[in-house]
Amino acid sequence: MDDNFLRLEKYLADKKEVIDKHLDKYIQVKGPSKIWESMKYSVMAGGKRLRPVLSLTTAELLDFPIENVLPIACAIEMIHTQSLIHDDLPGMDNDNLRRGKPTNHVIFGEAMAIIAGDALFAQAFNLIIRETPKSVKPENILKAIYDLSIAAGAEGMCGGQAMDITIEKSNEEIDSAIVQYIHTHKTGAMLRTSVRSAAIMADANPEKIKALTSYAENIGLAFQIVDDVLDVVGLTEDLGKTIGKDQKSNKATYPRLYGITESMNMAENHVNRGINDLLIFGDKAEYLILLAEYILKRKS
Amino acid sequence: MDDNFLRLEKYLADKKEVIDKHLDKYIQVKGPSKIWESMKYSVMAGGKRLRPVLSLTTAELLDFPIENVLPIACAIEMIHTQSLIHDDLPGMDNDNLRRGKPTNHVIFGEAMAIIAGDALFAQAFNLIIRETPKSVKPENILKAIYDLSIAAGAEGMCGGQAMDITIEKSNEEIDSAIVQYIHTHKTGAMLRTSVRSAAIMADANPEKIKALTSYAENIGLAFQIVDDVLDVVGLTEDLGKTIGKDQKSNKATYPRLYGITESMNMAENHVNRGINDLLIFGDKAEYLILLAEYILKRKS
Repeated sequence: MDDNFLRLEKYLADKKEVIDKHLDKYIQVKGPSKIWESMKYSVMAGGKRLRPVLSLTTAELLDFPIENVLPIACAIEMIHTQSLIHDDLPGMDNDNLRRGKPTNHVIFGEAMAIIAGDALFAQAFNLIIRETPKSVKPENILKAIYDLSIAAGAEGMCGGQAMDITIEKSNEEIDSAIVQYIHTHKTGAMLRTSVRSAAIMADANPEKIKALTSYAENIGLAFQIVDDVLDVVGLTEDLGKTIGKDQKSNKATYPRLYGITESMNMAENHVNRGINDLLIFGDKAEYLILLAEYILKRKS
Repeated sequence: MDDNFLRLEKYLADKKEVIDKHLDKYIQVKGPSKIWESMKYSVMAGGKRLRPVLSLTTAELLDFPIENVLPIACAIEMIHTQSLIHDDLPGMDNDNLRRGKPTNHVIFGEAMAIIAGDALFAQAFNLIIRETPKSVKPENILKAIYDLSIAAGAEGMCGGQAMDITIEKSNEEIDSAIVQYIHTHKTGAMLRTSVRSAAIMADANPEKIKALTSYAENIGLAFQIVDDVLDVVGLTEDLGKTIGKDQKSNKATYPRLYGITESMNMAENHVNRGINDLLIFGDKAEYLILLAEYILKRKS
């Protein structure tokens, strides 16, 4: 298991390097306006690149060249970044720091941060169309863009954020249906399309797409449950136990509803189910399985 | 000329009705979150629907069924609406009223207004893919989405907004290059793609696309110049001469640079050039010509 973990760490580092190189290439700062600098600042501010890694790993599983999914993988990361820029705005969570760096509006001002987020959204879609190799069928590119735009919008990520805002401002009792709605939409939808859009581009058959979708939904939920738990219990050695800001407001989280131990059991359950979904792929699913296990064991 | 104007008014009213009906159909308020209400509120808040009308009129000129371009026409209006919602935010222009109605954030709160705008962006793209009839070639749908996403992003509308923000906050001397950059990007790009994306969907040949592009660029500039002038000189009978808010800040406008008379001459010049661009289409260009003249003569 330790060997596996080291192997995965190497795998993740390699993939992150490829993704960062392509994001850097895809977003060229060009004059005369400051908007490109603002867009690039947040996209290149780091992060695990979990979403695009999932796209590349799905392509590999299906023997589909990763070059064919790199544009949509990077587009997904750009839309994810857009959501972080807007999330951090004074009118939303009002965060000044992300990943140890000043947030976009702190550097570029609130107006530019709003516009840069919007521009990343637009840029994501033209990137896919411009850079996806001609060997990928146009019908499949359209289907993949469709899947991504549903995941990003009111039926996906934005819908989850909107529900989160509504609940936080209300005095409504938080129940499991609300928590699950927020988690499957706010984080889950984009993780789901990271896997699905790659499989769609690769022309995978319905059985494979179904299995991969279920895998993605399961690890998506596990990811968010672990995120909630990490926010409550700061697991880093330095900090020991810290209370995160999710507890301060009426935030819908798993630990709040089920406690930490039960939440982690639920996350493990979802990871196991996700791994089970991959049985039809046999050994080829190795890295998607390792990624699922990593989601459960990550400390940050 | 008066007959023509009445004919155009009837034409515009008919087209607006079709567009409003489709926007209403395309944005279905569905639970559980408030986000759909917020999106629909601003999309259905009225407006001339100039952008989607241009798409439909271009389709008609090319003998292409308007059903084939209604989805992208409405998508363009949704992205236009998104830009208005974000423009009105406290972090941007901080406007409480638009078209006589409270702006989105006044009704739904700032956080929801940010997210609803983002969701409209996503929704625009999946609307095109879901609703465009199967008879339109997938390659042309991709090309049209590409054109739209360039027009909406950092190389188009967002780029123009970003430059506008940068200049407004600076003490930089406003020159004609800056004014033209802002106008061709902030307003021009979306008007341009309204015409172009319809022509692309219709599989128009390069000569026709070139002519229509030049037409759209010319009327786009005329539209914005007239907009600037209307902001300075309130031309309604009630108001007489009023000084608009563009004059109060360091806003890059044509009247500021050239004065009102010269600005209107420039607008007329662009309209004439735009009409000239349509010569290859003969009488079939009738309504695009009337639209160009309308842009010059409009009073609001």
